[in-house]
Amino acid sequence: MRPATNLSNQFRAIALRPSKLMALLTALGLTLIARPLASQTLPLPDHLVTLTSAEGQRLLRDSEALADYVPLTSQFVTQVNQAFCGVASTVMVLNALGVAAPLAPEWERNYFTQENLFNDQTEAIIARDAIARQGLTIAELAGILETYPVSAEIHHGSDVSLDEFRSLIRVNLETPDSYVLINYLRRAIGQESGGHISPIAAYDADTDQFLILDVSRYKYPPVWVQAETLWTSINTVDSVSGKTRGFLLIEAR
Amino acid sequence: MRPATNLSNQFRAIALRPSKLMALLTALGLTLIARPLASQTLPLPDHLVTLTSAEGQRLLRDSEALADYVPLTSQFVTQVNQAFCGVASTVMVLNALGVAAPLAPEWERNYFTQENLFNDQTEAIIARDAIARQGLTIAELAGILETYPVSAEIHHGSDVSLDEFRSLIRVNLETPDSYVLINYLRRAIGQESGGHISPIAAYDADTDQFLILDVSRYKYPPVWVQAETLWTSINTVDSVSGKTRGFLLIEAR
Repeated sequence: MRPATNLSNQFRAIALRPSKLMALLTALGLTLIARPLASQTLPLPDHLVTLTSAEGQRLLRDSEALADYVPLTSQFVTQVNQAFCGVASTVMVLNALGVAAPLAPEWERNYFTQENLFNDQTEAIIARDAIARQGLTIAELAGILETYPVSAEIHHGSDVSLDEFRSLIRVNLETPDSYVLINYLRRAIGQESGGHISPIAAYDADTDQFLILDVSRYKYPPVWVQAETLWTSINTVDSVSGKTRGFLLIEAR
Repeated sequence: MRPATNLSNQFRAIALRPSKLMALLTALGLTLIARPLASQTLPLPDHLVTLTSAEGQRLLRDSEALADYVPLTSQFVTQVNQAFCGVASTVMVLNALGVAAPLAPEWERNYFTQENLFNDQTEAIIARDAIARQGLTIAELAGILETYPVSAEIHHGSDVSLDEFRSLIRVNLETPDSYVLINYLRRAIGQESGGHISPIAAYDADTDQFLILDVSRYKYPPVWVQAETLWTSINTVDSVSGKTRGFLLIEAR
């Protein structure tokens, strides 16, 4: 019935495996001279479930803790540059909380953006230019959030057991008007590759998985990750702070 | 238990009713000399249900046609300027479909943005500068979409009965990998004020309401709208085209 879609899927399947495509082309005696248009996101290991897949959407429907999902996806943004994962995540949470926002001159309305988030108070914590070079540590992330009328409770990976990790975040995700940002090492969950920050939006108890709304939407879709895998990924050292990564529990104050 | 949140809610309630706030201040003998930081969005009439409200989320859970909701919210963007509602809506649909995308230089990845959407083919339909001045008619919107490997079927408001409107859109929303963009007159649904374009993401049969993912997120949240109200709002004339507004049914080809 829909041959065009099937063709499109085949193209995507090829585009997702560049090594196989190159091998095929070499076998055919061809050389690839231009990078083809390609599907947006990088391939995922089998143990990560894409939210938009049938299985990913079933997990969402069955989720026991998804009070944050609709408010966060209503405010979903892509980080504007490769270092602004923490900035984009902060904007999502502040807009989801409905915190009084600065003026966004492009629309003449009050709404948090990855530009108007910055002010003298945030510059005193870390300069915007420094964030653009090295991103944010979890302490800097909490500091920036707390320049606005919210509290951000820091939990380092080295300080929480798996049970504490699962329980603290699950309770937050069951509760409206409080949010979780996580700072994890991508390669510890099977992604490329360094430290990253994004919101967590839901928990599925039957499969013990958390849903990450990855703010680098050009690179990875939202994925379900095993709690233990995600917990391991925050018990890794951020070379900037010398401390382990972790997560923040955020609410209005 | 959470007085800070309650205070914040009170503040929001005040911020949403500027006329009452002004009356209160006047009664107290005070003059407001600076615009306060305010909650993001404009007040809504009672007949529109905000998605993030308890009622709005219940409608989503009970929805009979929401195959497009998760893919679209995973790609939700805000229009970058006041005329780019159609551009932002197009970017959401193309990214949700997984159509092969142009390079986005800010990330060195292939992903649709409100900048790289434009090329010689789209300029031939309507220049980017013209869109920034006057927005898009529904025919121009379809034309831009069809410069990519998708089909966009135009339905003008003057050409569809309420039953046809409801049925065509509902079937689309039940079907994965096909999307709806609607071009409507805001004031006909009780919003401020002119023509607007956004994706529709779900339908609730019990209450006969459609969910609009409004891309001017600085101005209005996603809302549920009565089918008949929305149908009335597309049977209005776009002064640029001289034709009625309407909706597009979009799928990959």
